[in-house]
Amino acid sequence: MRHPTRASTPAPTPATGAPSPRTRLLRRPARAAYDRESIDAILAEGFVCHVGFVHDGAPRVIPTAYGRTPEHLYLHGSTANRMLRSLCRGECCITVTLIDGVVLARSAFHQSANYRSVVVFGRGEEVTDPVEKQEALRLTVEQVIPGRFEDVRPPSREEMLRTLVVRFPLAEASAKVRRGGPVDDEEDMDLACWAGVVPLALTAGVPVDDALLRQPLPPPPYAARYRRPGARTG
Amino acid sequence: MRHPTRASTPAPTPATGAPSPRTRLLRRPARAAYDRESIDAILAEGFVCHVGFVHDGAPRVIPTAYGRTPEHLYLHGSTANRMLRSLCRGECCITVTLIDGVVLARSAFHQSANYRSVVVFGRGEEVTDPVEKQEALRLTVEQVIPGRFEDVRPPSREEMLRTLVVRFPLAEASAKVRRGGPVDDEEDMDLACWAGVVPLALTAGVPVDDALLRQPLPPPPYAARYRRPGARTG
Repeated sequence: MRHPTRASTPAPTPATGAPSPRTRLLRRPARAAYDRESIDAILAEGFVCHVGFVHDGAPRVIPTAYGRTPEHLYLHGSTANRMLRSLCRGECCITVTLIDGVVLARSAFHQSANYRSVVVFGRGEEVTDPVEKQEALRLTVEQVIPGRFEDVRPPSREEMLRTLVVRFPLAEASAKVRRGGPVDDEEDMDLACWAGVVPLALTAGVPVDDALLRQPLPPPPYAARYRRPGARTG
Repeated sequence: MRHPTRASTPAPTPATGAPSPRTRLLRRPARAAYDRESIDAILAEGFVCHVGFVHDGAPRVIPTAYGRTPEHLYLHGSTANRMLRSLCRGECCITVTLIDGVVLARSAFHQSANYRSVVVFGRGEEVTDPVEKQEALRLTVEQVIPGRFEDVRPPSREEMLRTLVVRFPLAEASAKVRRGGPVDDEEDMDLACWAGVVPLALTAGVPVDDALLRQPLPPPPYAARYRRPGARTG
């Protein structure tokens, strides 16, 4: 997330370790992370990404669910899906963002947010191998709700034929993380103004039965105790 | 969010009412909304958008906070912020997504998510009028945490000079909404598999005091009882 630069902070030199020039963070490089563990932890906790692609010369940004391995993100949709086709035709950008809190500083200027985001650049490839394709769909179901895939009817051959799966390499990725409390200017520290953080997390409510359930079944534990991996309690 | 099209659903004709061809939803047009109320409600509940712009011929997608009026989104950052400059130089796309739940169907193919999203196309304009600029920053603080602006030190003249504010017109916007339970195929309805929705919402935890608080101040009500407008309870 972009925020005004503090007057007291000298322009820092770009952080090193970026896998490519375009993944190097220019704004707030101290918040950058290029290591696999940081990137994987964010991608593990999310399940929705924002896909940026160019269509008719203008960028488009579309949210969609994903599955993942250490090497790839997998996206899927109808074979007529324009976004998925565009992903395979030119350079794209996929961003996953987790919002962790609102940071309340003593000045408007230093209000901020805690967040973790991953930005990936690259180009998609259609997955045509049926084994990899089925595995990609399994990974996507499991990314959204771990434990679910073995309880549901797996994709039929016909459903597979009507589904386009695209894999997107994770080779060119960077993470950006802001955590912790507000960073105020010394002259504001004595203001009679509460400062701190309101933690935020995507949390689950009580599962709602499908009105069309034909048998009295309780929600399985993965639904009744749903939480994102790594999500904080409270 | 993109999901495979059901075999049983004939290709629908594009919904009407879109403000421009590129805002018209081609996939799942039944989920489209072009009315101002639907769009405003989503923009009111969010505070983070994903900005898509083209840099060096490739799209980039960056999360950032926003403020808003009925006519504009306001984004801000350092005067050196490349994203904000790019927003004013060419066509861009801004997307706001709210995740409302995981939809557990009886088949992998029909797993889905409930969500509300707004996609806006256009081009940014730098805000140079100091009154509008200050108001944009106030709106952004208030978008993130309503009630906060009057408690904090307002932006100084120097901070204003170091801040770039860009406004983005809301003229060319569309919303997409998926709500409700799973839509399964008839042949799966008797499977001994729970189906339903796990509601999800971005919820607040207990406020954390800044370790540097110099006076014993309680968190104000807007922090202690923080919730996004329109967010469900539970």
